[in-house]
Amino acid sequence: MTAATPSANEPIEFWFDFSSGYGYFASLDIEAMAARHGRTVVWRPFLLGTAFKITGATGLSRTPLKAEYADLDWHRIARLKKVDFTLPPFHPATALPATRAFYVIERKSVTDAVRFAKLVYAAYFAGRLNTGDGGEIVKFAVDNGFDGEEVATGISDDNIKQRVRDLGETAIQRGVFGSPWIFVGAEPFWGWDRLRMVDEWLTTGGW
Amino acid sequence: MTAATPSANEPIEFWFDFSSGYGYFASLDIEAMAARHGRTVVWRPFLLGTAFKITGATGLSRTPLKAEYADLDWHRIARLKKVDFTLPPFHPATALPATRAFYVIERKSVTDAVRFAKLVYAAYFAGRLNTGDGGEIVKFAVDNGFDGEEVATGISDDNIKQRVRDLGETAIQRGVFGSPWIFVGAEPFWGWDRLRMVDEWLTTGGW
Repeated sequence: MTAATPSANEPIEFWFDFSSGYGYFASLDIEAMAARHGRTVVWRPFLLGTAFKITGATGLSRTPLKAEYADLDWHRIARLKKVDFTLPPFHPATALPATRAFYVIERKSVTDAVRFAKLVYAAYFAGRLNTGDGGEIVKFAVDNGFDGEEVATGISDDNIKQRVRDLGETAIQRGVFGSPWIFVGAEPFWGWDRLRMVDEWLTTGGW
Repeated sequence: MTAATPSANEPIEFWFDFSSGYGYFASLDIEAMAARHGRTVVWRPFLLGTAFKITGATGLSRTPLKAEYADLDWHRIARLKKVDFTLPPFHPATALPATRAFYVIERKSVTDAVRFAKLVYAAYFAGRLNTGDGGEIVKFAVDNGFDGEEVATGISDDNIKQRVRDLGETAIQRGVFGSPWIFVGAEPFWGWDRLRMVDEWLTTGGW
């Protein structure tokens, strides 16, 4: 199915948008799931907006009928997983500053970047962090023990801006149009619902 | 969560479009799943096109990026479930004649209508039945032991035409914008991926 034979221990890729409720739920489980298969996870926050321009989608929360369903469904999943879930008044934010900040932090420490991503997701879906506001993101970084000056400088850095743009392009080129999106080698899986299929794929080696 | 307390044995509703690959896969398992909970299934073929006008969607197979993914994903599910899957050259058909024929048959026998739906799905996704062609549908009905004259007359019957239109409106009013779509009482579930959640919902009574 895949062009290349993937290494058995190759990390799986986890692409997500910081405004994606389903991405948030996937983020809660993906590392444990990967670990059961001796895998690590490469976290790849990106902006879905670029893909939406191609697919003509407007985002769940901006689409009639889908918005109501997504709201019901996210709360239903939150109850199932026993996590808090409060859609912020500024939802869906365009999480460009948060996404850039992730890659700023990742330059020095992947572990720190992943910790940052988890904190951002939890705060956004507790309704208390506007991921689209650069000032808030810097303050949030400081409050959580990250280097605020580095984040403040980094999110205006041309290299970081270009990196986020490039990742948006890479997503499109690899056919990524939704969040969460998981790659096991070249094999793509779209959606929170598919974590179980990814699990099965990792168990069996694919079919 | 639901407005009314549903009866424990209330049938579950299965809404689907005859051109929906995910609907097809759901149709293979939904009755066995419902039966495990002492439930029956009400089959509700409808035309997704009306909802698409509201959500702005164009259908998976007409959407860039999504079309390629859906094709890969359908074949992946077919391999998993060990069923044939051949996307017909006329995909996605607007399955109006097939949908009308279902309701013609259902007037006399729900069991026959469900048998017809299963045959239509299997033939369409074997690439050998154009569900959008009234003549083909009548011939298909005859070949499979249904009353061809009744189907031929019925699919032009104003009452049947209106019934299919009404169901499209009902779908919208109830927030149905995708296929497959399952209702357990008032609780909506969208997508093939969610059969397992429906199963869990039926087991637990909801959460």
